[in-house]
Amino acid sequence: MARSLCALLAVMLILVADLRSQHRTAGRHPRLVASPMEVQLMRAERGKYPLFAAVFQNARTLIDSALRRPLDVPVPKDAAGYTHERHKQNYREMQTAGMMYQLTGDERYASFVRDLLLQYAKLYPSLGLHPAAVGKSGGRLFWQTLNESVWLVNTSIAYDLVYEWLSPDDRARIEEGVLRPMAKFFIKDCASTVDRIHNHATWMTAGIGMLGYVLDDKRYIETALKGTKQSGDAGFLRQIDLLFSPDGYYSEGPYYSRYAIYPFFVFAESIERNQPELKVYERHGGVLGKAIEAILQLTTENGDIIQINDAMTKTVKAQELVLAVDYAFARYPNLQHLLSIAAEQGKVTFDAAGLAVAKALNGSRPAPYAKRSVELSDGSNGDEGGIGVLRAGEQGSQAMLVLKYTAQGGGHGHFDRLNMLFVDEGRSVLTDYGAARFVNVEPKYGGRYLKENSSYAMQSVAHNTIIVDETSHYAANLEAGEKHPGQRRYVSTNDPSYQVVSAIAPDIANGVTVERTMALVTDAALTRPVVLDVLKVFAKRAHQLDLPFHYDGHLIHTNVRYEARTSSQKPVGKANGYQHLWETAGGESDSTISVTWLLSGRYYTVASAAAPKTELLFVRTGANDPNFNLRSEPAFLLRRDTTTTVFASIIQPHGVFEPVDELSLGYRPPFNRVRVLFTSDEATVVEYSGDGAIRWRFAVSHGPSDEARSHTVRIGGETLTWTGNHSLIKN
Amino acid sequence: MARSLCALLAVMLILVADLRSQHRTAGRHPRLVASPMEVQLMRAERGKYPLFAAVFQNARTLIDSALRRPLDVPVPKDAAGYTHERHKQNYREMQTAGMMYQLTGDERYASFVRDLLLQYAKLYPSLGLHPAAVGKSGGRLFWQTLNESVWLVNTSIAYDLVYEWLSPDDRARIEEGVLRPMAKFFIKDCASTVDRIHNHATWMTAGIGMLGYVLDDKRYIETALKGTKQSGDAGFLRQIDLLFSPDGYYSEGPYYSRYAIYPFFVFAESIERNQPELKVYERHGGVLGKAIEAILQLTTENGDIIQINDAMTKTVKAQELVLAVDYAFARYPNLQHLLSIAAEQGKVTFDAAGLAVAKALNGSRPAPYAKRSVELSDGSNGDEGGIGVLRAGEQGSQAMLVLKYTAQGGGHGHFDRLNMLFVDEGRSVLTDYGAARFVNVEPKYGGRYLKENSSYAMQSVAHNTIIVDETSHYAANLEAGEKHPGQRRYVSTNDPSYQVVSAIAPDIANGVTVERTMALVTDAALTRPVVLDVLKVFAKRAHQLDLPFHYDGHLIHTNVRYEARTSSQKPVGKANGYQHLWETAGGESDSTISVTWLLSGRYYTVASAAAPKTELLFVRTGANDPNFNLRSEPAFLLRRDTTTTVFASIIQPHGVFEPVDELSLGYRPPFNRVRVLFTSDEATVVEYSGDGAIRWRFAVSHGPSDEARSHTVRIGGETLTWTGNHSLIKN
Repeated sequence: MARSLCALLAVMLILVADLRSQHRTAGRHPRLVASPMEVQLMRAERGKYPLFAAVFQNARTLIDSALRRPLDVPVPKDAAGYTHERHKQNYREMQTAGMMYQLTGDERYASFVRDLLLQYAKLYPSLGLHPAAVGKSGGRLFWQTLNESVWLVNTSIAYDLVYEWLSPDDRARIEEGVLRPMAKFFIKDCASTVDRIHNHATWMTAGIGMLGYVLDDKRYIETALKGTKQSGDAGFLRQIDLLFSPDGYYSEGPYYSRYAIYPFFVFAESIERNQPELKVYERHGGVLGKAIEAILQLTTENGDIIQINDAMTKTVKAQELVLAVDYAFARYPNLQHLLSIAAEQGKVTFDAAGLAVAKALNGSRPAPYAKRSVELSDGSNGDEGGIGVLRAGEQGSQAMLVLKYTAQGGGHGHFDRLNMLFVDEGRSVLTDYGAARFVNVEPKYGGRYLKENSSYAMQSVAHNTIIVDETSHYAANLEAGEKHPGQRRYVSTNDPSYQVVSAIAPDIANGVTVERTMALVTDAALTRPVVLDVLKVFAKRAHQLDLPFHYDGHLIHTNVRYEARTSSQKPVGKANGYQHLWETAGGESDSTISVTWLLSGRYYTVASAAAPKTELLFVRTGANDPNFNLRSEPAFLLRRDTTTTVFASIIQPHGVFEPVDELSLGYRPPFNRVRVLFTSDEATVVEYSGDGAIRWRFAVSHGPSDEARSHTVRIGGETLTWTGNHSLIKN
Repeated sequence: MARSLCALLAVMLILVADLRSQHRTAGRHPRLVASPMEVQLMRAERGKYPLFAAVFQNARTLIDSALRRPLDVPVPKDAAGYTHERHKQNYREMQTAGMMYQLTGDERYASFVRDLLLQYAKLYPSLGLHPAAVGKSGGRLFWQTLNESVWLVNTSIAYDLVYEWLSPDDRARIEEGVLRPMAKFFIKDCASTVDRIHNHATWMTAGIGMLGYVLDDKRYIETALKGTKQSGDAGFLRQIDLLFSPDGYYSEGPYYSRYAIYPFFVFAESIERNQPELKVYERHGGVLGKAIEAILQLTTENGDIIQINDAMTKTVKAQELVLAVDYAFARYPNLQHLLSIAAEQGKVTFDAAGLAVAKALNGSRPAPYAKRSVELSDGSNGDEGGIGVLRAGEQGSQAMLVLKYTAQGGGHGHFDRLNMLFVDEGRSVLTDYGAARFVNVEPKYGGRYLKENSSYAMQSVAHNTIIVDETSHYAANLEAGEKHPGQRRYVSTNDPSYQVVSAIAPDIANGVTVERTMALVTDAALTRPVVLDVLKVFAKRAHQLDLPFHYDGHLIHTNVRYEARTSSQKPVGKANGYQHLWETAGGESDSTISVTWLLSGRYYTVASAAAPKTELLFVRTGANDPNFNLRSEPAFLLRRDTTTTVFASIIQPHGVFEPVDELSLGYRPPFNRVRVLFTSDEATVVEYSGDGAIRWRFAVSHGPSDEARSHTVRIGGETLTWTGNHSLIKN
């Protein structure tokens, strides 16, 4: 044992000596994702820490298998088929092979990168617009320039890694054949994309700028950082300032933040290594570090990113988040707790940051990442609404309530002011459809956004929020939506057993303004936290007001007598998303409407005050969907024709259902009566009560947030007094 | 270390000495699930082996908490609500408390059992028919006598465990107040149930017989074993002979086998301990051991019991299977490999067998239970059809094909002759609806079978088999169905890469007979095994023939031009289950019909020959379902109006879809053309081909199985020759 320890020590000393000599004689590449000195460290420690040893082994397996196949640089053809995937695979393999060359010195890896790049240098000049290009964003290698930008980001890294090994002739051929022509195509033909404040521009400027650092081309670098006019009005640095709020919320929402954060971090890392004086990681209040935290706080306990705006299934394990977590860990001293997410991800990047994370982790099991109640402002100055997340319960079995009052979120934003989501113990109970798209699935419109995305998924009725006269918020008009961000009222999280979030959406349609106040309440008498929901609609004349609840699970019970559409079904409406909803049943009530469903092990009930008279419509997605593009999902809508009114509800998890043990308990919700006791322009008081003598009254003040103002209302013979924005009176 | 070992040894010696002295002076109770000597062993080793230590700890927690609550023996009221659950909980707690008394000597546990039994002794004589009783099977404590039988089984065990501790007065009160009156109610008022050959009778005879052993009442014992006339024409022993096939297949299918196996094993164990001369575990060829193996072979790789006949979600972890596995392990020397299932279950019974299993397992990880291709005959003599299960691929990622050609299966049997299921890597790809029921969910008709169970779930169209003229097999008439078991042709599993199962269902409706031959084929050119399906319909005149495929997943592509019912939906038909299917789209073809869907990570395509002209109907369950009792699930139907014909299909898993990595590959199936090249009364030849020059021909012989007969058919200019039942010619 002692002997082998000595041998190991000897090897390490040699490596350290080697490292030092290398450092003295080191060339100036690589310079994007690792320095020559870090490469020596990675060589020495590549098998030492489990996660880095694994990424090295996987890389070796991937590239050794690639080396056995003939190279293929096909003429581009499809938007999501073989040639598309092949070119993506090529840049992944080039980048990995480049790093394998650095870590092993095996020239077969360097040759692999060179040979592919020489083929690209031959192919690229022959290409016109991609045959599957759509509109103005068409690329040459790929159907959209977005993918082409990603290619350049990854290929610049690969090129950097083999740069010193290449002959000057090969460098010239590669640079003149593909790298510079592509950069030129971006800067000249796609100048408007470069100068956008948008994730497509982030990728494109990252590609141009990273190539600039590899080639020492100041023009590329300045264009990337400051826009084609090099004025600073556009470009990467401006994007950092404008695309994130001071809290790190990305304007398009967490799904696209997950996507955009990759070029943000990979280019930031290149900037930090080559122009540290720009202090890119500190820019806009260190917003890149805040951005990764914002994404993580917008995930459920299962690690799923919440689906708001255009969004599909993504988890904390997405490769972009692996990179962002590793880079943030390596650069932000205050983000060392990200190590727990790295442990959950179970993988690290194949570069210097990845080694640092693997070394810090080294088989340990850090405490789980703390997901807490947070409020994230939206807008580059933090003054365009935001999103409130309330969490209650123990880590591992939390209840999570989300109220969305962000700005529009650009072209991927949905018309969903004051939309809410509810997740209980990892189950998505009240859901958002997300995007209508099957990414990369060729038969589904080439993997692109489906037309049902705009005709349904983006429309207000696809969300758990109010719709006026069957018209989406701001008539589903992007410009109008962008003029009307949601407005924060307050978020109150001091008392973990009674947390409240409140927001306003002004003038959402036909002059109607909506204010929604939601509380997440835990109580010793209840098995799980419940949600109180007071949604006040301010309207000068009568409108048809619809409040949908999109739920996951199987309908178990409603107290409302309804007529089911048993032998013929028709869509609920003709437009604005309503045309995609089959009406499966309908009824009405003027007392309390209660709907109970079952979702994997638990009952859930929404009980809502139904005075004035309220219709209850059961619906299911799938109407006017000739290509079977929509998932078939249930929802119910509360509908009321009235002026100013209050929709007051309580969302209750209760009981337990275990099919294997045939256990069913507590199918009746604790609260089954909801009444609006009082409402005025100043305040609303709602009573929630149940059979077991349980009675809560929830008082909310309207208008601007004011914690000091006291309110007094008379209800029947009783006087109710409270100070501030809200009050919960139990019994 | 040595010292503590010595101390431990000393304790053990004392315990063994104690055990021996106890044995000499042991009373005659307990005698049902453990002997006095075994009790001493359990006392000594109760903390020694992880699984038994856990069951002991759980029991202690459960009962210590029960001791702190007031006892409750409520007047029966509901069929699935509080009083129902309370009485169930009471017998569970009595049984556990009885064993806790035996293992600790703590008299609080014995008092708990006594006090509850004395309350039952007071309550029971006052009860008439249960208020929620339906029809003739109403009980007194429970809405059906079935639950009351279960109560008696568990309570007999509890009574046995405290028998010697009770005073003679208390014994008399308990026996005269509740135990004997209940036995009398069963034997006198429910004689026809006792004498049935049915799981209700198994539970009832188990209750009567086990009470008989505790009370030394010969009449009870003889009635339980041989029926109320004690002739042996009925009773428990006769049930063992008649309810299982020689292969251990239980007539109602694996879901109910899982249920029935509990009383079979618990009563068998009592018999073995008290009348070992009956050799109950060896009866009918040792069929009880075969029965547990049959259930396990009818589970997927996830451990889910396949859903055929009336069935709901159940896994190998069901408590009944924990008991059966433990008892079988303890009694059958040839079933020691059940230890791997015990490890998967992660729990053991709280009795002598549970200790034996925990001791044998003791933290080890046995090799996984081998699930293989099996054929299980149906019928007490094994001559009423059966079920064929083909499996291919590595343990952990098997493909599983099921062809069902059993007999009717009694009142829980479905009209599903030649129904097929396909499970791939644990995913249920082609599914059976199972039962329409929410067990124990009070708002769903008290947790009973829903009316949609008979109007939809039992009907032929709810299954992946042929339907003639929209009429279910045997007109969905139980008596007619029972006269027509399916008929085995052959199962061929010698070549693991080419396995075949074939069966016939004669005269299923309107004089039509169906023969179905299915092959599960692996091939180096394919990523996953595929299924070839040749379904020959013999009909003298033209009929409307429908072949549904009920699938799980999202529809991705079909090559058939169809008209979607976009703005109005109607049911496909008026009766026999068709009234519950919305028609979502329809088209037709006379070449090949191909339908592709996506199910969690993989594409699946069914391609079917469509000559003569074939309609394709897309449907979804949920029509004429006013109470939202049905799950909303998709299917498609092939429809053809013709006389004798062949439905030839191939079921293909292909490609991969990974949403988090946005990976989609291979959405096109390897085979996209299917043609019936030849068909006659003697044989059928089907060609399966694809774009990559892949071409298979599958030749199947009709009529009685004959492995020696040679067949020659001419197809165009070519002659095809094979010997035996089937042949697969690749290219």
